[in-house]
Parts: sequence; C-alpha cells; structure tokens
Amino acid sequence: MKAAWGPGPGPVVLLTDFGQRDSYVGVMKGVLLSYCPKAVVVDLCHEIPPQEVAAAAFTLRASVAYFPKGSLFVCVVDPGVGSRRRILWARTARHQFLAPDNGLLSWVETPFAEIRSVENRKSWRPQVSATFHGRDIFAPAAGRLAAGLRPSALGPTIADFRRLPLPEPRRDKRGARGEILWIDRFGNAITNIPSRQAVSCRWALCRGRRLPLRRHYAEAEPGRPLALIGSSGFLELSIRNGDFSRACKARPGDIVHARD
Amino acid sequence: MKAAWGPGPGPVVLLTDFGQRDSYVGVMKGVLLSYCPKAVVVDLCHEIPPQEVAAAAFTLRASVAYFPKGSLFVCVVDPGVGSRRRILWARTARHQFLAPDNGLLSWVETPFAEIRSVENRKSWRPQVSATFHGRDIFAPAAGRLAAGLRPSALGPTIADFRRLPLPEPRRDKRGARGEILWIDRFGNAITNIPSRQAVSCRWALCRGRRLPLRRHYAEAEPGRPLALIGSSGFLELSIRNGDFSRACKARPGDIVHARD
Amino acid sequence: MKAAWGPGPGPVVLLTDFGQRDSYVGVMKGVLLSYCPKAVVVDLCHEIPPQEVAAAAFTLRASVAYFPKGSLFVCVVDPGVGSRRRILWARTARHQFLAPDNGLLSWVETPFAEIRSVENRKSWRPQVSATFHGRDIFAPAAGRLAAGLRPSALGPTIADFRRLPLPEPRRDKRGARGEILWIDRFGNAITNIPSRQAVSCRWALCRGRRLPLRRHYAEAEPGRPLALIGSSGFLELSIRNGDFSRACKARPGDIVHARD
Repeated sequence: MKAAWGPGPGPVVLLTDFGQRDSYVGVMKGVLLSYCPKAVVVDLCHEIPPQEVAAAAFTLRASVAYFPKGSLFVCVVDPGVGSRRRILWARTARHQFLAPDNGLLSWVETPFAEIRSVENRKSWRPQVSATFHGRDIFAPAAGRLAAGLRPSALGPTIADFRRLPLPEPRRDKRGARGEILWIDRFGNAITNIPSRQAVSCRWALCRGRRLPLRRHYAEAEPGRPLALIGSSGFLELSIRNGDFSRACKARPGDIVHARD
Repeated sequence: MKAAWGPGPGPVVLLTDFGQRDSYVGVMKGVLLSYCPKAVVVDLCHEIPPQEVAAAAFTLRASVAYFPKGSLFVCVVDPGVGSRRRILWARTARHQFLAPDNGLLSWVETPFAEIRSVENRKSWRPQVSATFHGRDIFAPAAGRLAAGLRPSALGPTIADFRRLPLPEPRRDKRGARGEILWIDRFGNAITNIPSRQAVSCRWALCRGRRLPLRRHYAEAEPGRPLALIGSSGFLELSIRNGDFSRACKARPGDIVHARD
Repeated sequence: MKAAWGPGPGPVVLLTDFGQRDSYVGVMKGVLLSYCPKAVVVDLCHEIPPQEVAAAAFTLRASVAYFPKGSLFVCVVDPGVGSRRRILWARTARHQFLAPDNGLLSWVETPFAEIRSVENRKSWRPQVSATFHGRDIFAPAAGRLAAGLRPSALGPTIADFRRLPLPEPRRDKRGARGEILWIDRFGNAITNIPSRQAVSCRWALCRGRRLPLRRHYAEAEPGRPLALIGSSGFLELSIRNGDFSRACKARPGDIVHARD
C-alpha cells in the first residue's frame, strides 16, 4: 500500500559521511535493493567530514528543493550510532526524510507535517550491529518505504526533535556579520549571510581583504577575489577560475562582513 | 533465456581499483548498458588500492551477504591484465561473480556451485585491448549475463581456482593473535579476528596500548581508544568520534592481540 | 514526442569538474529526475581538474564510443559560467551532447549532424543562478530531452562552435614527438601519440629514459618502465604494477618521443 501523502515514491537520496574508500555506501544500496529492487538511488554526497552533523544539515538545506516530489532523503551522519539516540522519519508536503535525531534535519526550510520515531524493529534488519545502522536500520526502513510501506509502521509519531542553532549572521548598522560555513571543491567560501542581507551591499570583508560584490564571475578582474550571491542563495567569496580558500587561507568559521 | 539458477537477474555490482579520477568506471558502465539497457548498476567500491587483490577479496567477503539474490558481482582488481591469467565466472546459491583468477574470490563464504573460465571470445567485445579488460571482457560478459545470456556460453566449467590464504589469527592460551587488515575512512582498524574469538575477551592490545572491549561506542570514554565487534563481524579498534589510525599510528599488518 | 533521430533516449551521461565533496552532482541529478523520473543517469567522471576544458575534451573523446546509441552526454566544465558564452546542444549519428561553447566538444571524432544554441529560456529552470548552470540550464534541458523534448525547442541551429587545437604530435625522421596529456589513477602517462604513429616504433623516450614498447604488461620486466598502446588508442608510459608517474616524476606536458 502506498503512503497516503503522495503520488508514489520518488528516488531514494543518500547523504552520509561514509566517503568512497570503503564499501559502506555500496552495502547500504545492496540492502535497499533487497527490499525494493526498483528503487532509484541517488548519491547526494558522501564526503561530509566524519561526524560533522552541521555540515550535513547545511548540505541538506541547500539541496532538498531540487529533488522531485516523493523523494526520500536517507541521511546518515551519526556520531551517536549505537547509543539511545532516536532515529527520525519525517515528511514535508513534498519529501520524506530518515535521519538520526541529532540536528541533521534542523535547517530543512519547509515545516514537517509528521515526525515519527523509527523504533519498530520489524522495519529493521533482523540483526542490528552496534556501529552500522545505515546498513541495519536506515537502508531497510528506506527500502521498505520505497516499496510502499506505510510510515505508521515505522513507529509512533513524536512532537519534536533535536534542532541545532543555525549560526545566524548579525545585522549591524553597516551591513551584516556572518561566517564561512563551507569551502567547496573549487575553493569558494560559502557563508551564512543570505542574499536578502547581502544583495544591497557593495563589499565583503574577510581576513583583512575587501572584496567587491559582483553578480557574475565575468564581471571580476582575473585573479582578484570577489563576492557574489552563490547558487545556494548565500554570500560566497571566490576568485574567478581560481581558488579563493587557498589564495586567502580562508577556512570555515572565519568572520565575514557584508558592507554597504 | 534466463539463467536457470534464479528468478532473473538482480543488480550488477562493480568492485574495482579504478578510482574516481579517470573515466574507467564510467566507460565500463557505458559498455554494460550497451548490452543491457535496463541493468541496475551499483558501485560497491572503486577505491581498492591499485592491484591489492587481498583488499578486494576482503571487501567482497564483507559485502556479498547484503546484496539481493541474483546480484552479479563484477570484480576487476587485475594486476595480471593482458597475461594468460584466466577470467572466472562463478555462482553460489544466491549470487554470480566475474573476477580474474587471482585470488579475488578466495574468501567468499558460500561455496561455489559452478565455476567457468570466461574464454569464449563471442562474449567479449570484438576488439580487446591489452590493458583494459574491465571494458573489453568483464563489462560485455556482465551486460550479456544481465540480458539473459546462459553462463554456459561464457566458457567451460573448471574444477578449481586460485585461492589466497586468508591471514588467519592464531589462538593462544590467553586469547587470539591477529593483525590489522584495513583502515576505514573513519580511521577504524579492522582486524582478522572474528567475533567468535574476540567476543569473550576483555582487552585488545595493539602498538603497546591496551584497549577495553566494548559493545557500543556509547560505552567508551571520549577520546580513549576502544575495541569492539565491527559491522563486518571482526574485532575493530576505534576511537569514538575520533580517528584511531591517526592517533595511534596504526597500519595494516600491525599485530593485534585479543586477551581475556 | 521523441527526437526524430533515434530509437528513443539512452542514458544521460555526466562529465563535470564538480568533484565528490560537494552536493553539486547530486543536485543536478535531482533536477534531472524532476523532469524525467525514468532517466538512467551514469557518472562518466567528475574529477576533471577545475576549469580544465582540455582534460574534459580528452576524456569525452576517449569515452564516447563505448556508450549506447541515444546516450546524452551532459558536460559541465565551464569556466565561463554566467558570461555570455553559448551553451551547445549537438548530435552525431549515435549520440547527443550538451556542453558550454568553450572547446569541450572539440575532439569528438564523429562529425556533428546538427548543432543548436541552447537559448530558449523555456528549457531552463525558471530561476537561473549566476554560478551553477549545471543545475539551472544543463540539467533541466537534459531532463526534458530525456523525457522526449524535441531538440528544436532548445534554440536555433548554428553553423559552428569553438574548437580547441588538439595538441598534435609531430612526425619526424625517426618517429614522432608528442607530449603527456594525462596521468591516470595508476600513474600511467597517456600521451597524444596515436597507435598508428607508435605501433611500428621500438622505444619511447621521456625524461631521459628509454622505455621499450611492449604489447602487454606481462612482457615487461618487474619494476622497469615500459611503453605500450593504451586502452584509449594512444601511446602510454607505465610500470607494470607500479606508478610510472611517481617513479619518473612525469607530468602532463612532458615531451615524449617514439623512436624506431
């Protein structure tokens, strides 16, 4: 029987800190396909730094809106694996989520319409290890959901869950003060200053440098750092066709000012 | 015509040392889909260190049981590519395998019901390179099998194949003596001491340190090394939310004792 | 309505410089599946070094022939993102391509039967960022094509596109003079000297070393550098079960001579 809330399952989307060098992600897919041979499985990201829940929460926030209705996000960044931390199933109007109750779902922008504690052992693998719940709980629950299991079979509804405080930028007279959250593959520094606070500014300040705010890389002078509104909707510090992070020794946590 | 031994093909599961930086894995998938457009292809792992057959054999052993019936494992860690080494097709009651005859299939726990030498050139690509049999032999054979080719078309049955000695731990009066086989992404050190030899022990010794055996990370003191039964069923050395390998300079081959 | 030129869509094949550490590739897949839930998506390679269009062009050239008829290659190595550079759709007799007009399609060996400029905003996402056209233009266009959109809906046909000069080897009296184009995961150095120019030679010279040309790794002496015709059809410098690049400090751009 299909879940009542949607037109049938979309892809199963995996977000973990498992990396590529082991077979952990592959094994999760084996279990998933054992329960739902027709599941479409998509890798969102597996290179979340080990145990960094906030990085996973930020990645999820920046990605959810781009996935089709019915997508099921399976998020396993789980420093509390094997402890008594709960495992959550939650849904919004468009998407479903499985994640440990450690803050990973904090920054999903759409409100949750239903949250459950995944505690019915019938939805798990018969044997559950102490260290790999991705394989033994998350993947079987996801596979069963993708095959049509009713979410109510996972466990009881719950009223709330753990939320991490989003590191909010502060407004001040001259603009906003935020920080670098993430350095991407290209060396771009993604901050927590949203476009609505940055778009009217003319400069970003970071590590003693003053970066002009541009709309496109094409407006930048070659080799000179610039700021722009990045694809996630936050202020980003970059060098056109260069590596801002390396050139300016910028790191997550560095303070960034947006200035008129 | 479907293979006689099962209910139809499951996913095609790839295990290689090809890494991510080249297009070798992608090209194998292109060939596979050319022969079987509906094949479901799963990446088990591509980061086996170059030519390390034993690492691939261990990964395969730890993973096979989690894949659905009918899965076809295509294993290409092949230092003898282009030589006269044979290529094997084998099946157990639940799974099929393609691998070079170099020991890669040594540690699959279920006995093989049938083994063949893949030597019928009609199952290969028309042109075969000297260096990329993954593309020219393994992928076409796998694609054809996934599309329903009878395994007997690959080549004749053979009686045996090359086996690597599994580095077996030794029992002694006070417990067991084994070694580290693999360091995972989190810095956990996976040993060859199976749970049945370790589960009654209280301590693991490695590099002059004495690690208490715990059941869960949650029982560990923060920052202190511990031992537990890992998700593959072997004794594992860890630091909760830390990197055991880095902290203790542990490497594959290091001796580990399990002690009462 | 299906495109008129083929028997229906094959896989969507992704080639980018997005790497694995961010969710950029995953998000592209989310958008793709939003437009075509049944699309089969294959990762060709995402580890093209940032902005290295020539490396992507070489990878594409070496890979295209191994993919089934109807495959759609979505190539996003795009240092000009956000500028006025065009985005191309092109097709050969067997394959389709989407790529920025920056030379990425230069070395596809089959001639293009049709080229279009992807400029009809109806084929894009409603909102287009300044920095992530992979998500906002390429993925929606690809998803729509995979779902049956007629290519003529993307934009007008155009007569030509930007081509990069392929670094051609020079013939001389004693053989050929070329260069290293790429170092692969195993440390093999792939040159631009095609097999037809190298196959009659006996030696390759690189960094003061003289490497015998062999047909198979198995003919090489252990630990000694050799040359052979690699799987892409070019002269390749290797060490059997070793890392030529590391051992000989070879890098892209190094001069290589093939000698009788």
